[in-house]
Amino acid sequence: MSESANEAFNQAQSSLAEETVSSEAVYQGVFLQIRRDQARLPDGSLHTREWVLHPGASAILALADDGQILMERQWRYPMGREYLEIPAGKIDAGESPLQTAQRELLEETGMRAQHWEPLTVIHPAIGFSNEVIHIFLARGLSGSSEHAALDQGEQIETLWMSLDDLMDRVLAGQLPDVKTQIALWHLKERKARSA
Amino acid sequence: MSESANEAFNQAQSSLAEETVSSEAVYQGVFLQIRRDQARLPDGSLHTREWVLHPGASAILALADDGQILMERQWRYPMGREYLEIPAGKIDAGESPLQTAQRELLEETGMRAQHWEPLTVIHPAIGFSNEVIHIFLARGLSGSSEHAALDQGEQIETLWMSLDDLMDRVLAGQLPDVKTQIALWHLKERKARSA
Repeated sequence: MSESANEAFNQAQSSLAEETVSSEAVYQGVFLQIRRDQARLPDGSLHTREWVLHPGASAILALADDGQILMERQWRYPMGREYLEIPAGKIDAGESPLQTAQRELLEETGMRAQHWEPLTVIHPAIGFSNEVIHIFLARGLSGSSEHAALDQGEQIETLWMSLDDLMDRVLAGQLPDVKTQIALWHLKERKARSA
Repeated sequence: MSESANEAFNQAQSSLAEETVSSEAVYQGVFLQIRRDQARLPDGSLHTREWVLHPGASAILALADDGQILMERQWRYPMGREYLEIPAGKIDAGESPLQTAQRELLEETGMRAQHWEPLTVIHPAIGFSNEVIHIFLARGLSGSSEHAALDQGEQIETLWMSLDDLMDRVLAGQLPDVKTQIALWHLKERKARSA
């Protein structure tokens, strides 16, 4: 059995599996959708599970030939502060995660990349959302910020930074955004292994 | 100016800062609270910001003297699958993050720790929630799973694993839970620096 088939088998056979008894859309906002489900646990008891429905997202670690990484400064309203992040955005209906990554890189930074490869996939909020973020490594960059086309209400400033500088910030607790931090750890590990 | 004072100064002076014009509780569920705010951007335009209010959480990387790490298997309903995670839970009213970590370690695993230190702090869902997770490193462990006292509707199985085994899973994409993965990367880095 392949590793992924084995994983799927384990999930199906999990002794912890909760079964959906009913599912209701309880809030439909401008951006957020909330569902409230009744779930049956293996011991037969019923419990309420409330969660945020999310379309998934893609994020891009764009690495220039000179080793510099394309970063963004963006204000994140729920946190009331500015973050240093890699480019990212939600998956539109009908898009593959790679198509989203390519579109978002162009829209947010004006850049295109020749070489794309999956870096890793993360699940940021497993307690209350089904959000998944697909992180890609993009190389062979061209373009410029003049070609960026931001969404309405989106303010982004781009800048280039080195992996060493960014990892210093990770270790100092100054890069708490999870997609950005995890992308950087994976890149650092790849570089260490290929050195 | 200290590094943290410098950071606070930067945030206050951010050219990207959005100002709250109004804020409304639009959904109060069993577990989730949603707020919908009107925000004024630096260009004067008004935009809707909808977000999940979260009390914050603590997570515990519990490291035994022999190097084994205390892990949990837990079903996460929004994702419809089982995860391998470090112990964690939400901050109760009046608790410090450290108190939450100590309470959750005991409730979920029956273990206590003599030595506690902050490992890092992460912000998992900056686009739609104010959630913060405080990750602690706990050492000097004692106790046993017989002393665990799970919340109603909570099913958790504990197990011990090595850092090497866990990092293999991180690199294979089998540990997508962000608090767990980031805790492991920081521990690995600490070990590399002290070696």
